[in-house]
Amino acid sequence: MTTMKDVAKHAGVSKATVSRVLNKKGYVSKEAEASVLKSIKELNYQPNSVARSLYHKTSGMIALVLPDISNPFFPELARAVEDVALAYGYTVVFCNTDEEIEKEKRYFEALQQKYVDGIILSTSSQAPDEYHKLDLPLVALDRFLGENIPTVVSENKRGGELATQHLLDNGCKNLAHLRGPEGVGPAEDRLEGFRKVVSKEKCSYTVRTAGFDMERAKQETYKLFQDKPDIDGIFAGSDITAAGALHALSTLGKKVPEEVKVIGFDGIPLGQMFVPGITTMEQSIYDMGALAARLLIKQIEKKPIENYIHEFPVHLVVRGTTEEVMT
Amino acid sequence: MTTMKDVAKHAGVSKATVSRVLNKKGYVSKEAEASVLKSIKELNYQPNSVARSLYHKTSGMIALVLPDISNPFFPELARAVEDVALAYGYTVVFCNTDEEIEKEKRYFEALQQKYVDGIILSTSSQAPDEYHKLDLPLVALDRFLGENIPTVVSENKRGGELATQHLLDNGCKNLAHLRGPEGVGPAEDRLEGFRKVVSKEKCSYTVRTAGFDMERAKQETYKLFQDKPDIDGIFAGSDITAAGALHALSTLGKKVPEEVKVIGFDGIPLGQMFVPGITTMEQSIYDMGALAARLLIKQIEKKPIENYIHEFPVHLVVRGTTEEVMT
Repeated sequence: MTTMKDVAKHAGVSKATVSRVLNKKGYVSKEAEASVLKSIKELNYQPNSVARSLYHKTSGMIALVLPDISNPFFPELARAVEDVALAYGYTVVFCNTDEEIEKEKRYFEALQQKYVDGIILSTSSQAPDEYHKLDLPLVALDRFLGENIPTVVSENKRGGELATQHLLDNGCKNLAHLRGPEGVGPAEDRLEGFRKVVSKEKCSYTVRTAGFDMERAKQETYKLFQDKPDIDGIFAGSDITAAGALHALSTLGKKVPEEVKVIGFDGIPLGQMFVPGITTMEQSIYDMGALAARLLIKQIEKKPIENYIHEFPVHLVVRGTTEEVMT
Repeated sequence: MTTMKDVAKHAGVSKATVSRVLNKKGYVSKEAEASVLKSIKELNYQPNSVARSLYHKTSGMIALVLPDISNPFFPELARAVEDVALAYGYTVVFCNTDEEIEKEKRYFEALQQKYVDGIILSTSSQAPDEYHKLDLPLVALDRFLGENIPTVVSENKRGGELATQHLLDNGCKNLAHLRGPEGVGPAEDRLEGFRKVVSKEKCSYTVRTAGFDMERAKQETYKLFQDKPDIDGIFAGSDITAAGALHALSTLGKKVPEEVKVIGFDGIPLGQMFVPGITTMEQSIYDMGALAARLLIKQIEKKPIENYIHEFPVHLVVRGTTEEVMT
């Protein structure tokens, strides 16, 4: 790493002169200034933002804490956060917690030590009070951590209702919900939406926990049809869960959508490439990530935030797993 | 953010005393030490790693520069880098360049200013010399940037050969290769492997550029069959490309694998969930990311590196798009 001393030596001037050129303060001869600027360029010298962050207590870095980037819901979210951060001159540190509380704590320690300017939390392993203790600008993304933390989520409960209603509208009588992980907000909200509709319509139903995990969804689907061979509609808690269920149905020789209809949640790009395409409740994933980054940067820059809770609508996208449609 | 001054005030001692406790240097009474430690805990004070990085010129941060985290090849790679970094006490900054040279340059400036300790490059927009100018520990991942930069790649050329041979072994006579982006190393190597086999076997073939993009692969496949309706084997440059081709084939009413056989490349987890499952040349994605992170940290910690070029073998995974197999 090139230092100010290297620049001074290369330019044949004192460190104080280099400093005056960099800070545009005090008298420097035209000749010395030209020499310093030339040396800066030739040596590829970067003025020291670490020193700046020590003085101003900011780093130009934000963190994105999420469960697991390998889950196809998160890459698009992460991409959006990073695009907005770049536009405003911030870099993004990212952290996979696997929803493990110990991992999350280790990250928070590391992030605070590095004077990260703020954190976007797509995780909720700890009690909201623990997040407040961080004493940093925060945004909750795809999670709810309390009303005083700006929040960006989808209408998960309403999505659960619409997905369930779509199966009933297509003639399903015996429903199963392959729910996401217990204790994770969006998974709980989608389940609540499912329960609201099935209890109102008084139809037969069962709920199984499949996480947001393809392989687990596959295994749960095998078990589901051993116990209840007459299931004719599956509301999967995510598109990945739906993909696992569809794989199991294919192995079981169940025709989709004729014998069993399947709807997912998320609207990940791969869902439309499956044959048949996966019907889904589409979230505005990119827009959510972009808004979360914007809300965080507003806080860092001490700009006012008008609304704390942002709920994005979800949209039913009908494809071949629930209706016979032209591709 | 809590400062040393806050701790001193809370503990009822001087800043110098807090500093002596933190640095374990000089005399401090047992009573004052206990009081300082209690205040540190109560105020959740984090000793200042920014000051430390100013002094030592290290930050405990590494960067991962990649084209686009939304491409399903990269999340697993990123996850592996991040897991290894965490184990060694580093945090990861990530940057999406879209293979755009201007974006890449902006990132490099930002990263150097933050005293990032090293960079893993999964991008290659610039000439190798430009990367050397960074004067930082580097690792090339899924790219080749010169023999003096530690490199982690797959056997892409051999993979291209094996994939092509697999189509021929299954009776294909008229081959198409949907190649990845031009100028990107792994795409060029896979094409070279394809060309080697088709020229040796003297079979009919065509090459189309589909990037590593699902939608583009779909459109290229439609065009392909307009021009050459007798194509019976497609080597797709990635699994995502294969997914796009399969979607187009389904729309065209072409039976897979009976009329057209398709093989992808990468071994992304979703490939096995398609029905039929996507035959692929599987890369050791996670292991590659993990090794790249380890090689970078070794350089940062001034430990010797024995081998500079690490080529991971690829494995043929046969699924339903090339042979009728039991799921």
